[in-house]
Amino acid sequence: MSIPETQQAVIITAAGGPEVLQVTTQPVPKPGPSQVLIKVSAAGVNRHDCNQRTSGPAYGGSPIPGLEVSGQIVAAGNEVNEARGGETVCALVQGGGYAEYVVADSALALSAPERLNPIEAAAIPEALFTAWYNFFTLMKLQKDEYALIHGGTSGVGHLALQAMSALGYRVIATSGTDEKCAAALKFGAAAAFSYKDPELAQKVKDATNGQGIGALLDMSAGAHVATDFEMMAPGGRIVHLSGGGGKALTLPLRQVMAKQLWVSGSLLRPLAQARKAVIAEQLREEVWPLLGRAVRPTISHEYSLNEAASAHREMEKNSHIGKIMLVPAS
Amino acid sequence: MSIPETQQAVIITAAGGPEVLQVTTQPVPKPGPSQVLIKVSAAGVNRHDCNQRTSGPAYGGSPIPGLEVSGQIVAAGNEVNEARGGETVCALVQGGGYAEYVVADSALALSAPERLNPIEAAAIPEALFTAWYNFFTLMKLQKDEYALIHGGTSGVGHLALQAMSALGYRVIATSGTDEKCAAALKFGAAAAFSYKDPELAQKVKDATNGQGIGALLDMSAGAHVATDFEMMAPGGRIVHLSGGGGKALTLPLRQVMAKQLWVSGSLLRPLAQARKAVIAEQLREEVWPLLGRAVRPTISHEYSLNEAASAHREMEKNSHIGKIMLVPAS
Repeated sequence: MSIPETQQAVIITAAGGPEVLQVTTQPVPKPGPSQVLIKVSAAGVNRHDCNQRTSGPAYGGSPIPGLEVSGQIVAAGNEVNEARGGETVCALVQGGGYAEYVVADSALALSAPERLNPIEAAAIPEALFTAWYNFFTLMKLQKDEYALIHGGTSGVGHLALQAMSALGYRVIATSGTDEKCAAALKFGAAAAFSYKDPELAQKVKDATNGQGIGALLDMSAGAHVATDFEMMAPGGRIVHLSGGGGKALTLPLRQVMAKQLWVSGSLLRPLAQARKAVIAEQLREEVWPLLGRAVRPTISHEYSLNEAASAHREMEKNSHIGKIMLVPAS
Repeated sequence: MSIPETQQAVIITAAGGPEVLQVTTQPVPKPGPSQVLIKVSAAGVNRHDCNQRTSGPAYGGSPIPGLEVSGQIVAAGNEVNEARGGETVCALVQGGGYAEYVVADSALALSAPERLNPIEAAAIPEALFTAWYNFFTLMKLQKDEYALIHGGTSGVGHLALQAMSALGYRVIATSGTDEKCAAALKFGAAAAFSYKDPELAQKVKDATNGQGIGALLDMSAGAHVATDFEMMAPGGRIVHLSGGGGKALTLPLRQVMAKQLWVSGSLLRPLAQARKAVIAEQLREEVWPLLGRAVRPTISHEYSLNEAASAHREMEKNSHIGKIMLVPAS
């Protein structure tokens, strides 16, 4: 397969709204020694990309957003097994996904699951790496505990619910609407409640038979700290995925001490490649066999690269269930 | 040995200043099935006791303060090995230590180390249980990390520095005065700095060769959060021991995420007895052989039970190095 010198790619032209995303002609990147070059079939849109757009082109090292793709390996560095040439993969990438071609670390480009189409395959990496890293690597969730995800129908939420429930973990979800709560239950939530419910903490405690939550994933930057703390089990862990635009997180220190809660936060993108590779291996072993069976991403919207601005507007409307995807012209 | 029906004990007569502590005649407690009755040789005074006094007699289940004693076992419940009768022990107790007699769970009454006198033996339990629980059980400190203790000459601090440095851990201390910093170095601190130093974070980072702090014990209720966060290593853990009178802890969420820090807090007194018993076993195995050799408490002041108010005034002056002790009339 001949590889062109240039490609069409979406760049962030300036910090701003969705209109700053524009398709431009960019060089096709060259894979480093341990990297593969992927001809992109589809790319996932993530909340992170909207934050990156707001921060401007310099943020994150590449003006091209996009953290996950599916596609075919069309070239590889000299440390990569030659047998991978032509393989259909889905990959976690360090930006650059909103494009026709992108490079990925070979260890983070996993064989695309047979039972998923290319758009579904591209919808998987960011959500599953995020769920696995936070619930298992960091929070060390146990099967006799309950987990909770605020935002059970988000990209991360809906896939985490499916994978974790299939693996035998009990996960409770919150969502903003009745429709989303119903969807969360379908995705495998043990229970689903509106996060606006004034009795949320009591309902969650009842749903856990009084045990409380052992591991909580919070994407609200601590919008409901008092409720969260009330429903945590002693020794419970909370990880924040949203920095809330630089705001402070205010914790009731006595309650932290009395329940011996752990509060942390994480970012997937800057995580060391070696640590991501460990997660990739665990996903390959534990979750890959479930893909297309118990676990299948819900695709909410598809857009062409030209429509990247519309994709970001859709993400920021916050009414979608599942994933928003970009598909380059083939 | 005949056991009297009543004893002299210090009680908190009302919430208030040191003057609310008064010696009164109280019943000698009866040991439960798994408890021992100890004739007290000496009792330690802890910051917790001052907080309990401020909160009033109902706080903590007993109006008699005191969380640690040394003495002789003079009676025991029917589940306790009879061979323990007459044994000289030091024990972690659930209040009641400022007295002539106190009950302790048998598992938390450890043989008093031969090389320590009774006053030194009583100075050990609270500090060593606290240091062990927080640094090892909760923060899982590793030998290739650095630890930091704010308050390196406190009761907990000066014994933690001795025990942990003897076990091969690298612990940095902060203190409020040059004299205390010099004492902290003598206790085994790898480095000691004033916590008022405006360049504290940079000095700590330099002292760790840029690595930063892996595990930090904070008794200041987050008084120096910005400095603490600056000197933490990625993945570092912070545990708070002071609730700061109910105040909120304000964390820079983005920094929590960027460094993937864990923040928690703990209370030793309400910890389940079974978990305390595990700590007791670990201390017996790892630290007991060091007592009177590498680890010996510094006794700052001794008072009689009648002088409990003076002991609390001394604690609250904050100028002592090491432990303040109470000694009942024998």
